[in-house]
Amino acid sequence: MDGKNPSESLIVMTELVLPNDTNLYGNLMGGRLMYWMDIAAALSASKHCNAPVVTASVDNISFESPIKLGNVVHIEAKLTRAFNTSMEIHMKVWGEDLTHQYRYKSNEAYYTFVALDPNRKPRPVAPVLPVTEEEKKLFDGALRRRQLRLILGGKMKPDDAAELKALFIKD
Amino acid sequence: MDGKNPSESLIVMTELVLPNDTNLYGNLMGGRLMYWMDIAAALSASKHCNAPVVTASVDNISFESPIKLGNVVHIEAKLTRAFNTSMEIHMKVWGEDLTHQYRYKSNEAYYTFVALDPNRKPRPVAPVLPVTEEEKKLFDGALRRRQLRLILGGKMKPDDAAELKALFIKD
Amino acid sequence: MDGKNPSESLIVMTELVLPNDTNLYGNLMGGRLMYWMDIAAALSASKHCNAPVVTASVDNISFESPIKLGNVVHIEAKLTRAFNTSMEIHMKVWGEDLTHQYRYKSNEAYYTFVALDPNRKPRPVAPVLPVTEEEKKLFDGALRRRQLRLILGGKMKPDDAAELKALFIKD
Amino acid sequence: MDGKNPSESLIVMTELVLPNDTNLYGNLMGGRLMYWMDIAAALSASKHCNAPVVTASVDNISFESPIKLGNVVHIEAKLTRAFNTSMEIHMKVWGEDLTHQYRYKSNEAYYTFVALDPNRKPRPVAPVLPVTEEEKKLFDGALRRRQLRLILGGKMKPDDAAELKALFIKD
Amino acid sequence: MDGKNPSESLIVMTELVLPNDTNLYGNLMGGRLMYWMDIAAALSASKHCNAPVVTASVDNISFESPIKLGNVVHIEAKLTRAFNTSMEIHMKVWGEDLTHQYRYKSNEAYYTFVALDPNRKPRPVAPVLPVTEEEKKLFDGALRRRQLRLILGGKMKPDDAAELKALFIKD
Amino acid sequence: MDGKNPSESLIVMTELVLPNDTNLYGNLMGGRLMYWMDIAAALSASKHCNAPVVTASVDNISFESPIKLGNVVHIEAKLTRAFNTSMEIHMKVWGEDLTHQYRYKSNEAYYTFVALDPNRKPRPVAPVLPVTEEEKKLFDGALRRRQLRLILGGKMKPDDAAELKALFIKD
Repeated sequence: MDGKNPSESLIVMTELVLPNDTNLYGNLMGGRLMYWMDIAAALSASKHCNAPVVTASVDNISFESPIKLGNVVHIEAKLTRAFNTSMEIHMKVWGEDLTHQYRYKSNEAYYTFVALDPNRKPRPVAPVLPVTEEEKKLFDGALRRRQLRLILGGKMKPDDAAELKALFIKD
Repeated sequence: MDGKNPSESLIVMTELVLPNDTNLYGNLMGGRLMYWMDIAAALSASKHCNAPVVTASVDNISFESPIKLGNVVHIEAKLTRAFNTSMEIHMKVWGEDLTHQYRYKSNEAYYTFVALDPNRKPRPVAPVLPVTEEEKKLFDGALRRRQLRLILGGKMKPDDAAELKALFIKD
Repeated sequence: MDGKNPSESLIVMTELVLPNDTNLYGNLMGGRLMYWMDIAAALSASKHCNAPVVTASVDNISFESPIKLGNVVHIEAKLTRAFNTSMEIHMKVWGEDLTHQYRYKSNEAYYTFVALDPNRKPRPVAPVLPVTEEEKKLFDGALRRRQLRLILGGKMKPDDAAELKALFIKD
Repeated sequence: MDGKNPSESLIVMTELVLPNDTNLYGNLMGGRLMYWMDIAAALSASKHCNAPVVTASVDNISFESPIKLGNVVHIEAKLTRAFNTSMEIHMKVWGEDLTHQYRYKSNEAYYTFVALDPNRKPRPVAPVLPVTEEEKKLFDGALRRRQLRLILGGKMKPDDAAELKALFIKD
Repeated sequence: MDGKNPSESLIVMTELVLPNDTNLYGNLMGGRLMYWMDIAAALSASKHCNAPVVTASVDNISFESPIKLGNVVHIEAKLTRAFNTSMEIHMKVWGEDLTHQYRYKSNEAYYTFVALDPNRKPRPVAPVLPVTEEEKKLFDGALRRRQLRLILGGKMKPDDAAELKALFIKD
Repeated sequence: MDGKNPSESLIVMTELVLPNDTNLYGNLMGGRLMYWMDIAAALSASKHCNAPVVTASVDNISFESPIKLGNVVHIEAKLTRAFNTSMEIHMKVWGEDLTHQYRYKSNEAYYTFVALDPNRKPRPVAPVLPVTEEEKKLFDGALRRRQLRLILGGKMKPDDAAELKALFIKD
């Protein structure tokens, strides 16, 4: 399989925060945002592998500024790296108040999806070929994040996570 | 403020997977599940602190078995520990096929919420007093998970994460 | 078929009242509540008979206190009695204001479901074996409620409703 | 207050059964139908009293034929009688398969609403003046149904329900 | 195929404007209204041709008064004319404030649907036989509106649109 | 007010077609698409004028290829021209099957929005300054489309629609 550039899997999603998406303070509920992000990431993964996909995992997400009722949610999703049958998708999420022309960061996140064949079994996907500096940095970090996922999921011993370990031990 | 037991914040949520919650394979979409989990966790946090809350962060989630259309989603949410104004909520999520009497694990997750005062500023919450062995284990692990959150969020240096570091360096 | 205890069919549902669930006064609409109750009751019935079910009838429901926007809805559903292919489910519904730690009754209700075989025809279900005093009382009352349902549905003459009649004639 | 004819409160509602309204057999869920009926009845009550209203109670509903995915739901709601601050609304519900030109009865139901003043307290409503034979019959039956509601709600002793009692004792 | 009167395809739809249907000013969003109108028109078309239908086009719609949160939306849909496999549906849309007994026009619109056979190919439909003066006028205008649609869709040259042209050139 | 380029109001929206968005043939309902387009156009208009907006009118839309369940909807919205308080937005809509890498046109459309001041009265908006050839062509056509809208809305006599008339009379 030929590799693909991250830009080939770019998905730009724009949503309006409606009353039912908000809590009592008129701010977008975190769960509603994660729902939209899941769809954006799924579309990005599917665009890369041209196959149906399922959510395998979601990395730590930290919500910075709340997004308000009537504001706009911008989500940009793009592949960082593929690991045989799985794909890591990086997302940037902003809120925007169109009236006051104010744009603010909500969060950055990584979702992992697995490509499925017609029998619903994992199938191999094309590798990702990073082009820009940012894409290369995200590609490199993907290995470390994957090790953390495996450790947190109890599928790897911390000792075997060479890249991740380097974060904690600097001699 | 007097402490509270984790069981005082227990929320049991039961949902039915309807067509619009599913992907083309008839499985519950990850994002829809995270939406329900966000509400379960918010209710648990709010039950503990008796104040409105907002989602601050979500830890790594790894989805095991897919939950099918027409199956039931069970979510149990309970506080593990409080850190001044924030609360960590632990959730267990199962799917269940009532016809075939088959119950299967979907995932385990940690969400963090912040309590708000009437001016929408963070306000202190009561401490959590773990009782059972499992609650004590979750209470202890909360410190390590918090360090990981801070490191991943760029708010703590790996070197300062004593508890987390111990995972990687055993001498 | 072996009988089952009511507790084996217990379903605990917890929902948050969102803006679109409310009327102009910010109170949960009765119809939205009945929708949730229908799902809770269906899951309880399906848990008892391990088969798909359909709503056959709903008994008189009287709504006491309105449940407010942002409050929590608690529904507990449990079988009272089975009649060949049909099951009566009893539900208790409370609202709760988590901030003010105030819990209030909304209503109590009885829904009846029919179990279906793969050809969508009614199929027999296991009997219910009440254990607690409350379960036994609900089991006994089920006969009277069934007679009322049949009379109201024009399928039984009042004269044949011995148990129900006793309510009106005490000599 | 001048009385109004039932026809002045007529509401005709038409809905299409979409995938998310159905169970695994592709039939409209009872709860979704009760949701639509609640709105139809509320609009009918509000049209009669020209004030906001809340659902007070729902009488026994027995579902006859299931309504299928893609079929049409017809609801006709009309007042039968007013009791100081409350109004009884009668509804007829049909399903229709437009392709096969087949129309079938789903159920008949009675919902009771209370009119509210700006302070959210019950306020008196105009009486209903039945015109047709059917309207007169529904008007008369309203008293009996109200007694049954009060008895079932524990607010009236069976002995005091003269009209209802006559159903059970014919000498 | 025998013709049918427009009244045979009448659909009366009544909807309540809920919070999630509104913009920040508490007015019904145009897109939500067009969604309801699409369903009303589809049901009307399907009632005429007794077959599944798909939206082919929507004519110019001009929204007059905004419909407010908590108000009622009335839609009346009826066929004006059939053209082999397509049907033009005329809709009148009003808003109504039941509390203040105030009814106001929102818009008038024309949607065009195509009837489909079981292979999803267009199939012929019965002609429309207008009866009232208004129906006859709508029937005549349908030809002119169809020419405009074809010109705007690039499928007809303005010179061939005799009926439409007469609007612009009066000698 | 300084003019703005059309590209400054570009909104890119991406949606996934879910079960409840489709008709019995598994194709996206026209009304659901018009709902999404209304939001995309509203956001584009609001981005241009930095004020709340309301839908004033929708021009003829002709739906070409149906968009299937599980496919992606792409909407690109951009201002073409402003007329004192109103703005015309041009949209291109495609469907995409990510698995088969097949992208197909659904429709092109023009929506008109009005900017509102805090008292909900129309307020002037900045002019549009077209840059590219396509933008200039859309800018010029906007006048003709506006005349057509006014004629269809009964607010202009065909004789006064110089630009539009030229379409029908070529000497």
